[in-house]
Amino acid sequence: MRVSELAQRTGVSIPTLKYYLREGLLHPGESESRTRASYDEGHVARVRLVRALVGAGGLGIEQVKEVVRALEDPPATRHELLGTAHAVLSTGELPVDSRDEPLVAGLGWPAQPASPASRQVAAALGRARAAGWDVGERAFRAWARGALVQARADVSRNLGTLSPSEALEFAILGTALTDPVILALRRLAQEAVSAERLGQLSTG
Amino acid sequence: MRVSELAQRTGVSIPTLKYYLREGLLHPGESESRTRASYDEGHVARVRLVRALVGAGGLGIEQVKEVVRALEDPPATRHELLGTAHAVLSTGELPVDSRDEPLVAGLGWPAQPASPASRQVAAALGRARAAGWDVGERAFRAWARGALVQARADVSRNLGTLSPSEALEFAILGTALTDPVILALRRLAQEAVSAERLGQLSTG
Repeated sequence: MRVSELAQRTGVSIPTLKYYLREGLLHPGESESRTRASYDEGHVARVRLVRALVGAGGLGIEQVKEVVRALEDPPATRHELLGTAHAVLSTGELPVDSRDEPLVAGLGWPAQPASPASRQVAAALGRARAAGWDVGERAFRAWARGALVQARADVSRNLGTLSPSEALEFAILGTALTDPVILALRRLAQEAVSAERLGQLSTG
Repeated sequence: MRVSELAQRTGVSIPTLKYYLREGLLHPGESESRTRASYDEGHVARVRLVRALVGAGGLGIEQVKEVVRALEDPPATRHELLGTAHAVLSTGELPVDSRDEPLVAGLGWPAQPASPASRQVAAALGRARAAGWDVGERAFRAWARGALVQARADVSRNLGTLSPSEALEFAILGTALTDPVILALRRLAQEAVSAERLGQLSTG
């Protein structure tokens, strides 16, 4: 198909598609002449992925480039896929305070060496403390138990039936697109527990 | 204390403190002359709260203004505090697709009328679906179960011993500052489950 049809199919403007091509987010079409190229279903799928990552996923262009690089050179085992997906989703420096490491290590969970997840947890604990919010061990362990319940639903055996690049796309998108659901559920659950425990107390 | 000492105590520059005063984020000091005012420990605490909300909490100035308004006029019962805290933390429009409402209603959880939490959950489900990620009922219910485990640690009976404005500050800060910990734990838990289930499968 022509670039105009690709634009129509994906709802993405031609200038934006050309920007994706220049940035390497979209692989070149098959060249038909010096000024004309042809695109296929692989291009449609890639444009939709880029839109999802930028839009609902809230990723920056540099992060999307890393996703694309990871898709083109997926890791060797399916388990490593998740570590790669999480490394791609993480941004910026992760300064870790030594006070926060024992809390994370105390969970005894295995993490992917390639993944920044352990450091992310410790760094987030440190940022909260620096802002005046010290997360105690009891709350942290309860959060971890809840996260495990959620993760068992996220990581299904179905991952094993996908191709490596499909599985990576699944892991990256599934996490980035549904983070807002997890945070909103946190608030709703707090209110449900509060209704149960505190509803009858007045502030007077 | 003088504004210079307030700046020193809080690590916030004098121009920024004056900006907070102009915007009403910080209540005026006691006037000593036409150009001189005196500040107390309440100002130190308020500046630290504003810094925490803007910095680690990632709130915009308009949201911080709402927090301040809520602190100065707290709701009537402690349970309503959470709804108010969550209303303050939510931003923007929440368009809800009717397909997502039954999923949320199906949990059967009570929510505060003042709180946008139910709509936030439904809107987040809708945004994920629009981006190509349909959250199934099975996964959603598992996420909800995990969120309840976490919320039981968040909502402690201690809330009952604080003053209404302390409790509101606690609810707002505790949620905003620790959201990044919840999301990072999600990734770490996914990797732990993945290691357990998929570690041995190669992608070949």
